[in-house]
Amino acid sequence: MSANIVFIGLGNMGLPMAQNLVKAGFSVSGHDLVKASVDKLVEVGGKTEADSMAAVAKADVVITMLPASRHVESLYLGDAGVLASAKPGALLIDCSTIAPEAARKVAAAAKARGFEMLDAPVSGGTNGATAGTLTFMVGGSKEAFEAAQPYLQKMGKAIYHAGESGSGQTVKVCNNMLLGILMIGTSEAIRLGMANGMDPKVLSEIMSKSSGRNWTLEVYNPCPGVMETAPASKGYAGGFGVDLMLKDLGLAVENALATNCAIPLGSTARNLYDIHSMNGAGKLDFSSIFNMLGKAQ
Amino acid sequence: MSANIVFIGLGNMGLPMAQNLVKAGFSVSGHDLVKASVDKLVEVGGKTEADSMAAVAKADVVITMLPASRHVESLYLGDAGVLASAKPGALLIDCSTIAPEAARKVAAAAKARGFEMLDAPVSGGTNGATAGTLTFMVGGSKEAFEAAQPYLQKMGKAIYHAGESGSGQTVKVCNNMLLGILMIGTSEAIRLGMANGMDPKVLSEIMSKSSGRNWTLEVYNPCPGVMETAPASKGYAGGFGVDLMLKDLGLAVENALATNCAIPLGSTARNLYDIHSMNGAGKLDFSSIFNMLGKAQ
Amino acid sequence: MSANIVFIGLGNMGLPMAQNLVKAGFSVSGHDLVKASVDKLVEVGGKTEADSMAAVAKADVVITMLPASRHVESLYLGDAGVLASAKPGALLIDCSTIAPEAARKVAAAAKARGFEMLDAPVSGGTNGATAGTLTFMVGGSKEAFEAAQPYLQKMGKAIYHAGESGSGQTVKVCNNMLLGILMIGTSEAIRLGMANGMDPKVLSEIMSKSSGRNWTLEVYNPCPGVMETAPASKGYAGGFGVDLMLKDLGLAVENALATNCAIPLGSTARNLYDIHSMNGAGKLDFSSIFNMLGKAQ
Amino acid sequence: MSANIVFIGLGNMGLPMAQNLVKAGFSVSGHDLVKASVDKLVEVGGKTEADSMAAVAKADVVITMLPASRHVESLYLGDAGVLASAKPGALLIDCSTIAPEAARKVAAAAKARGFEMLDAPVSGGTNGATAGTLTFMVGGSKEAFEAAQPYLQKMGKAIYHAGESGSGQTVKVCNNMLLGILMIGTSEAIRLGMANGMDPKVLSEIMSKSSGRNWTLEVYNPCPGVMETAPASKGYAGGFGVDLMLKDLGLAVENALATNCAIPLGSTARNLYDIHSMNGAGKLDFSSIFNMLGKAQ
Repeated sequence: MSANIVFIGLGNMGLPMAQNLVKAGFSVSGHDLVKASVDKLVEVGGKTEADSMAAVAKADVVITMLPASRHVESLYLGDAGVLASAKPGALLIDCSTIAPEAARKVAAAAKARGFEMLDAPVSGGTNGATAGTLTFMVGGSKEAFEAAQPYLQKMGKAIYHAGESGSGQTVKVCNNMLLGILMIGTSEAIRLGMANGMDPKVLSEIMSKSSGRNWTLEVYNPCPGVMETAPASKGYAGGFGVDLMLKDLGLAVENALATNCAIPLGSTARNLYDIHSMNGAGKLDFSSIFNMLGKAQ
Repeated sequence: MSANIVFIGLGNMGLPMAQNLVKAGFSVSGHDLVKASVDKLVEVGGKTEADSMAAVAKADVVITMLPASRHVESLYLGDAGVLASAKPGALLIDCSTIAPEAARKVAAAAKARGFEMLDAPVSGGTNGATAGTLTFMVGGSKEAFEAAQPYLQKMGKAIYHAGESGSGQTVKVCNNMLLGILMIGTSEAIRLGMANGMDPKVLSEIMSKSSGRNWTLEVYNPCPGVMETAPASKGYAGGFGVDLMLKDLGLAVENALATNCAIPLGSTARNLYDIHSMNGAGKLDFSSIFNMLGKAQ
Repeated sequence: MSANIVFIGLGNMGLPMAQNLVKAGFSVSGHDLVKASVDKLVEVGGKTEADSMAAVAKADVVITMLPASRHVESLYLGDAGVLASAKPGALLIDCSTIAPEAARKVAAAAKARGFEMLDAPVSGGTNGATAGTLTFMVGGSKEAFEAAQPYLQKMGKAIYHAGESGSGQTVKVCNNMLLGILMIGTSEAIRLGMANGMDPKVLSEIMSKSSGRNWTLEVYNPCPGVMETAPASKGYAGGFGVDLMLKDLGLAVENALATNCAIPLGSTARNLYDIHSMNGAGKLDFSSIFNMLGKAQ
Repeated sequence: MSANIVFIGLGNMGLPMAQNLVKAGFSVSGHDLVKASVDKLVEVGGKTEADSMAAVAKADVVITMLPASRHVESLYLGDAGVLASAKPGALLIDCSTIAPEAARKVAAAAKARGFEMLDAPVSGGTNGATAGTLTFMVGGSKEAFEAAQPYLQKMGKAIYHAGESGSGQTVKVCNNMLLGILMIGTSEAIRLGMANGMDPKVLSEIMSKSSGRNWTLEVYNPCPGVMETAPASKGYAGGFGVDLMLKDLGLAVENALATNCAIPLGSTARNLYDIHSMNGAGKLDFSSIFNMLGKAQ
């Protein structure tokens, strides 16, 4: 447990992830533009340094959790960036959700400088980040994947090796596009049943045992009152926000353009979430798309 | 086991269902416009009669399995139809997949004549019909649902009470619309992953453990080679045909018009299956929509 | 001008149409469930009778303007309906917008009784009805089409013979489906341009001279301020309502199901208008879909 | 007519455009990676030079016609690129169809170096390029727009000033997205009419005089036989190819992501054209989408 970790990006996700590493006994130097976030890491035993790249220069492991492709590219590829600063043999792990193309580009630059780098986006939300039960989808070499286990296992419980560099991002973007489609499709099915006089609970139960079964029916029913613990039964508060789903669907559409894929349902899903967000629902849970498909009450 | 059953409609689904009732020891009189089908029922111990309505007049239970709403309405509501011919106290069970509105209309007419009637559409395909492992989604009174158990249990293994008359059809149409969406969404996700260089097997495995999980990933993967037993790995032969999915999506769209529901993904799914069918794929398994979303090879 | 006309259905469209026939010198007996509407026709010189079918029995021409297929079927086909009551040789003209199938069915029944019947739906809205400048799309025999000219020309200025019975409705449903698509497509294009900093007026002008040209750009621009006379510049008041467009798109989808056609954009248009209506915009002009595609202001 | 023009990019569009400038009496130095294209310009009186940037250094006007954003960025922004090589006061005109963002970026870099630059994408196809009847949609300052008239007028007949830098590209992308939607919507409407027994010619004529009117009905009907001169009546040969429409719809989707716009019909149009292309129709005229929407014959 003597590894020196630098963790850059202490937002809603990054901070609890870094805190879990501190609790596991690692020496963690945290960095963020928001000083209050850094303070919260220091409170639980973390460290920091005025010059983040000076910290990077001493780190065995660099973990990053940033908002979008351009931040990752800038932080790693910049003149005084991570690749220019890290010491030989350092392991680089980017947990941000970004475009697969961007992940491949940064990983290739890392490799050219002799570094092993993993793209390791997560799912599980802020609850999973706090509880240390995130799911990691990891792209990069088998060796780097193994080397990262001691750290990833303190932050998550399901850790998948998806393949070469960029594969972690690819799985994330494919899975979340599919999730967006599942949520809208399930909402349509329940709305249609209700319009025919069905009890949404009975309908959901039967479909969850039939060929309509999917994750949203099992644990995240979009109809208020069907599942007590789901965001739908709590005014669509908390959970995974509409604007986050919109971001992920945007990555899917962008990637489909780059790879010349046809994604008719994925594209329609993005447009529906965009309309939903523009109508003021951006901060609600993404299951609130159920609301948009029925008469305002 | 002394109940007299009349079974009308001995097609790909009806014949094996009726055969299972014969095997269970019931006296079954079978009727179909195709004599060869009737013969096959007689071969295993069934009976028939020249005048189907004479048989209906003596039956304790009438079971029907017909292609579409208009056939059911005509058979039950016609001047010399089932409602005009059946004896008091007969139990009427329609296993056809038809419009919920049509099911409600026929059930109301049956009720007006003093009959208990169930709409009990099935899923599970010809394999399930032969093996006696169909799923029944049943609408009608609780009493009629209980009274039908001895018969339904010989033809299926999962038997759900969905609610009032028409609810069985409603569940079927909602579930199958959702299934059509799941299949296209899953195909899009796998295609997108492959275009990024992913192994479709690895991608499918990770998504099936994540929030993209759904029935098609679990038992019916649309990508050839991922699941040995799936139609995709057998040239998309067998299974549930494109034209059958198209029929069910048509019922969903028709119902959404009648109930004024918005089903953007369900509607797009119907149009995509329609295009797929018009391009010659009508008889292939419905997972072949995977093919339409990628470059012809 | 000695023809006796019976006009049934004096709503927002039917009343001004009947009034124009009165002004042209015809003897017009008007009928509607709403007495106030009948009174308004009588005020300008029309007549009425307690028993509408007694009036039909004396009529040379029967013109109907009703809300939906079921009203037309019931009025014409009922036991004491128009076909049972009209005198031999009477010309029957239905101006309602209904399903092509329904129009063909009623026309066939009329023909079986020896009547010539036309389906003659209109476009042009209440303004066109009042001004006598409606467009008529007419299905039925060439002879009946010619025989109807004296009456249609008093209510409209463009009168097209579309073909056999039902063709008038077919043209209406195809044209209005296309119009719904044009309106959404044009709204998307203008929104996209504005998001890039374009002046919507300049963009609209250039597109209206280029291959994006369409009726909405020419006379019905959906962006407020671009065209002074368009509903968009008057708070989307007046014009052709969202719920009327939704009805016509529903007829298109219903017809596409019946004829097994793929209409991916038409289906999506119906769903978008349905969502727009459910969110409270049902009474606004249909160009208000422009609003749904952008951030609420 | 003493201006020295350098024209870079002598493809299907660029070569006839450059030839028209030569015919108008300008001194034109042409450059392309394909020597045969350069030769064809020289044959009609054009010039060339081994080092294209040496030619640029002497030019009063630099016109470029390249395939995509990356080529334009590379040619203008590279170390030995156009901006680094051109002489003070040179007028820069890029006629390529590229992303509005890319056009704004290059124009800003040009401005920073003191150059006036116009984005001036065209429509009208190879026929328009040869005949000198292209439409130009131009972004940039009013002064530069005026200064470019002597050159643009020799290559086109309709020349619109759309606004600031990038506006030319914005108009192009908006117009062509709308065109893609018009073409599919019109195809759906005609298919639906034909499925109801309508003559496509009669239907097209009535709609072109009604609210369904649009450019495709007027000059580019997608149904074979309706318009003798349209690609549809010539086996969908020539015209504007499916893959070119797919490229432009891709630019629209990319731009909608960048500007956070909802374009539900535009997105669906892209996916339908992508499916059409993947099924082998990439080189056919874009009106061949009509074929995909009906039964293969």
